[in-house]
Amino acid sequence: MRRWNGWGEEGDEYALSDDARAFLAARIGPGRAPHDASLQQVVERVGASRLPSSGHGFETDAKIRVLHARGQSFPDWIALRCGRIGPCADGVALPSSHDEAAQALASARKLGAIVVPYGGGTSVVGHLNVPASDRPVVNISLARMNRLMVVDDKAWLGTFGAGTPGPQVEAQLRAHGFMLGHFPQSYPYSTLGGWVVTRSSGQQSLRYGRIEQMFASGRLATPRGQWSVGGVPASSAGPDLREVVLGSEGRLGLLTEVSVRLRRLPEEESFHGVFFPNWASAIDAVRAMVQADLPLSMLRLSNEVETETQLRLAGHPQLILWLQRYLGMRGIDEGKCMLMLGVTGTLAECRRTRRDALAIAKRHRGVHVGKGMGKAWVRNRFRGPLLRNALWALGYGADTVETCVNWPKATALMRAIEQAAHDALAGDDERIHAFTHLSHVYRQGCSIYSTFVFRSAGDADADLERWRKLKTRVSEVIVAHGGTISHQHGVGVDHAAYLPAEKGALGMDLLRAVAREVDPDGMMNPGKLFT
Amino acid sequence: MRRWNGWGEEGDEYALSDDARAFLAARIGPGRAPHDASLQQVVERVGASRLPSSGHGFETDAKIRVLHARGQSFPDWIALRCGRIGPCADGVALPSSHDEAAQALASARKLGAIVVPYGGGTSVVGHLNVPASDRPVVNISLARMNRLMVVDDKAWLGTFGAGTPGPQVEAQLRAHGFMLGHFPQSYPYSTLGGWVVTRSSGQQSLRYGRIEQMFASGRLATPRGQWSVGGVPASSAGPDLREVVLGSEGRLGLLTEVSVRLRRLPEEESFHGVFFPNWASAIDAVRAMVQADLPLSMLRLSNEVETETQLRLAGHPQLILWLQRYLGMRGIDEGKCMLMLGVTGTLAECRRTRRDALAIAKRHRGVHVGKGMGKAWVRNRFRGPLLRNALWALGYGADTVETCVNWPKATALMRAIEQAAHDALAGDDERIHAFTHLSHVYRQGCSIYSTFVFRSAGDADADLERWRKLKTRVSEVIVAHGGTISHQHGVGVDHAAYLPAEKGALGMDLLRAVAREVDPDGMMNPGKLFT
Repeated sequence: MRRWNGWGEEGDEYALSDDARAFLAARIGPGRAPHDASLQQVVERVGASRLPSSGHGFETDAKIRVLHARGQSFPDWIALRCGRIGPCADGVALPSSHDEAAQALASARKLGAIVVPYGGGTSVVGHLNVPASDRPVVNISLARMNRLMVVDDKAWLGTFGAGTPGPQVEAQLRAHGFMLGHFPQSYPYSTLGGWVVTRSSGQQSLRYGRIEQMFASGRLATPRGQWSVGGVPASSAGPDLREVVLGSEGRLGLLTEVSVRLRRLPEEESFHGVFFPNWASAIDAVRAMVQADLPLSMLRLSNEVETETQLRLAGHPQLILWLQRYLGMRGIDEGKCMLMLGVTGTLAECRRTRRDALAIAKRHRGVHVGKGMGKAWVRNRFRGPLLRNALWALGYGADTVETCVNWPKATALMRAIEQAAHDALAGDDERIHAFTHLSHVYRQGCSIYSTFVFRSAGDADADLERWRKLKTRVSEVIVAHGGTISHQHGVGVDHAAYLPAEKGALGMDLLRAVAREVDPDGMMNPGKLFT
Repeated sequence: MRRWNGWGEEGDEYALSDDARAFLAARIGPGRAPHDASLQQVVERVGASRLPSSGHGFETDAKIRVLHARGQSFPDWIALRCGRIGPCADGVALPSSHDEAAQALASARKLGAIVVPYGGGTSVVGHLNVPASDRPVVNISLARMNRLMVVDDKAWLGTFGAGTPGPQVEAQLRAHGFMLGHFPQSYPYSTLGGWVVTRSSGQQSLRYGRIEQMFASGRLATPRGQWSVGGVPASSAGPDLREVVLGSEGRLGLLTEVSVRLRRLPEEESFHGVFFPNWASAIDAVRAMVQADLPLSMLRLSNEVETETQLRLAGHPQLILWLQRYLGMRGIDEGKCMLMLGVTGTLAECRRTRRDALAIAKRHRGVHVGKGMGKAWVRNRFRGPLLRNALWALGYGADTVETCVNWPKATALMRAIEQAAHDALAGDDERIHAFTHLSHVYRQGCSIYSTFVFRSAGDADADLERWRKLKTRVSEVIVAHGGTISHQHGVGVDHAAYLPAEKGALGMDLLRAVAREVDPDGMMNPGKLFT
């Protein structure tokens, strides 16, 4: 059963070794175990639904409303853990088809209700927050729309219910000899429709593309009726309206059905660890690889602190010691940076690509340590968020920010983000453990993904305040450096204040004009993306 | 000097052999040489500018107004040839910078004028038509904004004035060791800004991408002030507003500066002719190649009639006879289809890709005839439109339509388009010579590009009527088959009636809402894209 107040399945733990605990304690001080509220306590505190007792099709049971009230942002996390979850929807609908979703929307409209669409509940930026409103609020969950409806094996298209989560996307396609290849860290729970409306990007986007490139067409239920976008491979017939749905974060209606571009299963896949003596050589190597158009499936480069952290948290101190010695003999020591390199394709392609990539790495003093690190990475590729549970149990909060920027700005922005994080809590005399990797690379630039671990204050308000300082400071730095406020998580409420800096006043007006046109009464997910 | 009433430079002719003339006469009957108006005649007939005599910055000379009045659509062509060019702008501005363009726009606004932006004048769907209006109309030409302003050799970006035509884009980049790779047939004259606002696609988009993939950021002068879009490699921060500018056809303002993603020059490039015994095997081979992700730079597949036409028009009857004999011995005869296959990249990549592509071709009974046909194709790759001049001089009109559709519909739609063309003039007892190629291929489907040659009636109104019947019938067939109304030419006025079929009523409302927001007075290129 899925955890109601954290990541993952009940009982699935990310074990932190004593060594890892000591490492953290040394970096930022010892934590204090928290006192968490129970689901029962939270459910009991929830107010009664404001919906009429029947005839509208929404479930009004307190528990189901609580289970849809929050995502996985830091404020969501704190709210769930301390048991003050804030406003809950007044009802939840779980349609099984486009027509049922359209009915639920029509019913919400009749009730004068606000709609918060719900996919896999994995948003980390507040997409799911229920606004405090005089109007009733309902969740419409796409969870029951989780089936592969059509496969076109000539055009290589698959049409799914928008609520299909990652594993069910891939399992249903595999039965037809196809795959999609979208693997964000939230993959176990996040859904195809969620990926589209938040412009998600997966770990192997280098090969498979971002969701923008996969999204062929979609069907929406909107306050103004049914709307379809896309359908042909390419077109010059005016602005591409798929691109308006991508990133619309529920403001334009319910995305109910999604057709995606498929791939055949690769013959082979492997992931390789490569260590560089320092950041400068590592980032140059990665840029050289992507600008050489090598058909790699992943380039994921950890900076010095992330590399050290991963080695300390790996849980195999003897192996790591051996690795460090080997690297030391090759001149790679303090300040080393680890690159995880994904190779996917036909046997011949993989052999060639691996050879070409490692040759570039070597020219930049990179040392290949084989597939062992890669196998460990694969085992844990979707387990990272579990670490948040483990850290919390030790009295630490954790959050991430991410952005994307052109190559000339990448290193400076990465350093500035970490510095801003350190500075944010310096006034409280609290240290932050901050580390970063480049998770997605492009010929033009890269994404920057930073993780922050800090001590819980033992009090929800104080924890939120720490997070707010951190988030504000870091977001301001991102904006000041010309980075996007999000490369893969979306805007939600947490990033909404920073969007005008990159869209411009006129751009924001356009977004508002589009939403107003589709949703004249402002019933769709208000407060998300823009205010 | 560029021709004022046709394609290409004065004196640059596409020679049609006697054999080619006989071929056409046999297919659709002999043509009659036309009587064309002279530029002098047209200039004399143009009404006086309605602009005040000075103080607004627009040139009002009749000749410059005539030279900006029309593009290259069939109605444009007829208008120029018969000398009834319809409304001309009242003035033309030729700004040299973003600020000057913004000034021209402000001046137009003060005059209460409508603005028709002008790039290379190569639109084939009526983007440049000057509306008959009580308001004055001005052209703002970007022709003087033709310089490479900045090269970022780390992010591989180049920023250009939006009026830079193809050859000047590539020549200026080559000096820095870079290239763009956008080669539409209009390349000698069409401009970077024009490519963006019409969502253009070049002959080697298989390698270099459509303009959507190249367009990194842009700066616009709009009725509501300056607006910038894009700038980072990728983002999940809401809908991508680059995608609203792409295909906006002048409705949102003047695109003045464009930053594009660059490539290094390839080590090698070659084009290869491959003949297949029939259409079914040829299209299967092409689909197999693109779905195998072979890093080809072009796949251009001619159908039976286009293959025959190209061989007859090639102007080397002896060589062609030899080729036909050779192919005949290999079992390829009547009904054969020619594929032009582009291979571009490093030496090793080219060798490999050529080998893999030819292996797939062979499995589908394709016969490689070497690089000779490819070299001929390269020589003429941008000269196709000159054929229109030559045909007109013989008394024939020519036009093209293009669309894009998923693989399962491709052959049926191609046949239906040609059949519709034949049917369109059957009532007039006129035959049409119709032939087709697939010019761009995707894993999901392909574009379909058909050419029609028909006899001129010797009278402008009758010619236009023939064209209108043809265009209407073919467009209806495209819509009925679910094709897009344009894969690479845009919407303009000629396709505007068919856009709602693919965008939906709600989609059209969104486009109108966006335009209204940026351009509340409706001064930007009204009537284009949508009404």
